[in-house]
Amino acid sequence: MTTVENINGFVRTIQVKEPRLGNNTADVERLVSALSHDLEQKGNAPKDSSVYFPPHLVPDLARQLRQWGHCIKVVLFKDSRGWRVIAVIDPELTQPVCGVAADLGTTRVVLRLVNLETGANLGELGFDNPQIALGPDVLTRIHHARDPKGLEQMQALIIDGMNRHIKKLVHAAGLGVESVYLFTGAGNTAMTHLFLGIEPSFIIREPYIPAVNAPESMAAGDAGLGMHPHGMVFLFPNIGSYFGGDLIAGILFAQLHKKENPCLMVDVGTNAEVVVGNRDWLMACAGAAGPALEGGISDMGMTAGPGVIDRVSIDIDTLEIDLGTIENKPPVGICGSGMIDLAAQLFLSGMVDIRGKFSPERCGERLFEKDEIQHLCLVKREDSGTGREILFSQVDLNSLTSAKAAMHSILEVIVRQTAGLSFEELEKFYVAGTFGSFIDPRSAISIGMLPDMPLDKFEVLGNSSLGGAARLLVDPHAFEEIRMIGQSITYIELNVNQSFMNTFSGAKFYPHTDRSLFPSVSIYGG
Amino acid sequence: MTTVENINGFVRTIQVKEPRLGNNTADVERLVSALSHDLEQKGNAPKDSSVYFPPHLVPDLARQLRQWGHCIKVVLFKDSRGWRVIAVIDPELTQPVCGVAADLGTTRVVLRLVNLETGANLGELGFDNPQIALGPDVLTRIHHARDPKGLEQMQALIIDGMNRHIKKLVHAAGLGVESVYLFTGAGNTAMTHLFLGIEPSFIIREPYIPAVNAPESMAAGDAGLGMHPHGMVFLFPNIGSYFGGDLIAGILFAQLHKKENPCLMVDVGTNAEVVVGNRDWLMACAGAAGPALEGGISDMGMTAGPGVIDRVSIDIDTLEIDLGTIENKPPVGICGSGMIDLAAQLFLSGMVDIRGKFSPERCGERLFEKDEIQHLCLVKREDSGTGREILFSQVDLNSLTSAKAAMHSILEVIVRQTAGLSFEELEKFYVAGTFGSFIDPRSAISIGMLPDMPLDKFEVLGNSSLGGAARLLVDPHAFEEIRMIGQSITYIELNVNQSFMNTFSGAKFYPHTDRSLFPSVSIYGG
Repeated sequence: MTTVENINGFVRTIQVKEPRLGNNTADVERLVSALSHDLEQKGNAPKDSSVYFPPHLVPDLARQLRQWGHCIKVVLFKDSRGWRVIAVIDPELTQPVCGVAADLGTTRVVLRLVNLETGANLGELGFDNPQIALGPDVLTRIHHARDPKGLEQMQALIIDGMNRHIKKLVHAAGLGVESVYLFTGAGNTAMTHLFLGIEPSFIIREPYIPAVNAPESMAAGDAGLGMHPHGMVFLFPNIGSYFGGDLIAGILFAQLHKKENPCLMVDVGTNAEVVVGNRDWLMACAGAAGPALEGGISDMGMTAGPGVIDRVSIDIDTLEIDLGTIENKPPVGICGSGMIDLAAQLFLSGMVDIRGKFSPERCGERLFEKDEIQHLCLVKREDSGTGREILFSQVDLNSLTSAKAAMHSILEVIVRQTAGLSFEELEKFYVAGTFGSFIDPRSAISIGMLPDMPLDKFEVLGNSSLGGAARLLVDPHAFEEIRMIGQSITYIELNVNQSFMNTFSGAKFYPHTDRSLFPSVSIYGG
Repeated sequence: MTTVENINGFVRTIQVKEPRLGNNTADVERLVSALSHDLEQKGNAPKDSSVYFPPHLVPDLARQLRQWGHCIKVVLFKDSRGWRVIAVIDPELTQPVCGVAADLGTTRVVLRLVNLETGANLGELGFDNPQIALGPDVLTRIHHARDPKGLEQMQALIIDGMNRHIKKLVHAAGLGVESVYLFTGAGNTAMTHLFLGIEPSFIIREPYIPAVNAPESMAAGDAGLGMHPHGMVFLFPNIGSYFGGDLIAGILFAQLHKKENPCLMVDVGTNAEVVVGNRDWLMACAGAAGPALEGGISDMGMTAGPGVIDRVSIDIDTLEIDLGTIENKPPVGICGSGMIDLAAQLFLSGMVDIRGKFSPERCGERLFEKDEIQHLCLVKREDSGTGREILFSQVDLNSLTSAKAAMHSILEVIVRQTAGLSFEELEKFYVAGTFGSFIDPRSAISIGMLPDMPLDKFEVLGNSSLGGAARLLVDPHAFEEIRMIGQSITYIELNVNQSFMNTFSGAKFYPHTDRSLFPSVSIYGG
């Protein structure tokens, strides 16, 4: 837990000038003037910019100022129109003034409690998105929400879940929900709409129009969130239907918009989202590369947990398969990053050919046909943690092949064909998201999913959406950065992009039909 | 009822660009962009200024746009931070979109219903301020409101009264309260505080500090007003404790801040408030000259009504008193303007001397002593509408003398001593307020209350506070004008002004100790 002092964030203690006969400005205007001066002094606001002091705080201010000797602690926030005061607090009170940052994932929601005065991380908590009960993926949820009752249910699920877990999180830190003055959330466009009770159906119909791109900040009560009654709720803006606030938060966290040389960030969640650019320009696109990599494609696919295979190596001579599992428990399934390892090792050992098909002469007796589909036995029944064999079928492999080809094509279209860069020109390749945290870049390169770049250019970001949302809680400048990111991004619509389909065909080979793209990958027998 | 077409006010019908694959901005942003363009085109907003679209309107917008063919009627408003959308309306609906302007007087409240699209006046209604039940004047009300319960009661009285009468007003026009989208109110500083539920006690304690000078616009629900649920409430700003929003509204109505040559406006209500200036500068002051002139000083003093004496003339030779009454009913009392007529005629006929005392040789048997106080019999019992004599005592006359001396001193201090102007240099002398509507300037000059200026320079404004509040309902530029008026006014504190007291003594004479100030007044026997 790190503590930063004097972060010049959203909580400030201000000394207001006492009134005199010669200076009889009203109380509100004297406080606003002192605040404006403080913000200007500390580089948070241009000269003469005003601060909005909301009507509901006015009735108590005169007595508060006089009771506290004209010294006052205020919680501030920014919105599209500038600075505003959220709450007025006795400067003698020592209870921490907090905010909650949220990664509003389609499948998983993660919260972080932050001390707004020091920047300290006071705890984190993750929970499954309760909307899963009404629809496992974005599309079914959008369909469910077409009906006003369905929309209401969908919103209630996430808001109730959020409230339950905010309470848990603050209680674990020994606080109450009234300590939470700010909430910043980053999610994809549909999640953001559902969170706000906005029907998202036009997002998925041509011409794919969100109801809103940059939602205005709103009062906690209007958002239905159980926090300080005067608290404010901010959701990161979308760029379009397929490019959500979660990725804007990720860019903010990676500080891509401040780099001198071009960098790239990829976030593989339900979608694969890619941003490339620097301080002068940003380009983004997104595509459905995700499900295969999130553990959703095969019977044995699963998210990380004890016994899940997360590392695979195959001896090229003996073809012995060595599996690493989480907590070294007997294997029960395989996660996305494990599957990439597996595919890479199968390919490098010749058990999978360049077309992405199992090679019978290399697989030997591990390979067998069931329901007219080839299956590779990875773990025998007696070694398995489930009491059943763990199999990897040609169907599973095909899904992975499509996913890796999609990922390659997305990167190819945006970096080379659109931005006109070679991968060598990228200074950094950031991999965000839970999936990205565990991926072995070497394996991903071997199957042609990631470009063949020096390994030290790859950098794991972790949960960048959460990181960006948390950054906003302590850095007022982030507001302007978010606005600038939104303005400087060009969004490339892959749905209507012919190059993508052209590239996709070659990318379904291992590692690619054009072998010169992957000089570091030595192909078995090649 | 006048109707103005295309007033470019707060209601606009906008054609929003339909989305296409090549232009897939979100719905809210497309509407905001169309609105900004319209405002810019019509000179209501600078280029690239945004319009705030509140979160609660977002969920319905996508369907509304598509249902109405992307043609939409919006009700707008401005606040300290710029333009905002208040409501989104089906452009096919023909029901008028209205606003209510209010003069929040200490004793009387007056409302006007205005069609926001055409500017038409749809009706007016006045009612006694229900706070009178808890305190007849501002001071007792402020004392009552020191206790939180008292403050709550005080606010509830005015808000409930307002709601009852808004309902009456709109029903009389065949409408419902949901037709009212805007409410603009102008009152003095204390009235404004009490309306907003803000404790006003620091207004009357040195150094006389209001809690707020420029209250932010607020939602109808937060203000407790029964109108359209998304409606907005605006109260005119104060300049200080003694200079309220009612006078700012008056200046706006008189357009004093746009005059080339200096003009003066006086509003006699509970206080006498004076503003002098032009488009380059404005000076204001206020003083307690009012009660005597509002019909509150004598047993027979009253506000206008049937039988109330509103005109007096005395034959200088026969000393016969000729009284005019409202509706020619038998006399029952005298109103403020009638009293000024009376005093002027008494003085001009020599029945009152230059010291403001009854002259026994001129008054003759009309004058008699009762309880050691001189009384003049104005109406005998048999001619009276009350069955009793109507008397005018030396005490009544002294009150009027103080009031007229106060008024003269206020004018003298602000025009000559502070602004450094002669009265000749004033282009116009505006008289606002109900009292001002009935005053005979000739009589007011004769007793030395108003300066000795050509009669054609005097102009009656009527209820200028109401006029200013109503102007704001149809003229978006008025917001900026209000801000500019507030900034350019210098407020002269008479409470701490020695000149005022010096001037006051001479001004208690009729018309004044310095007769050269009133060359047009011929003094009896002088």
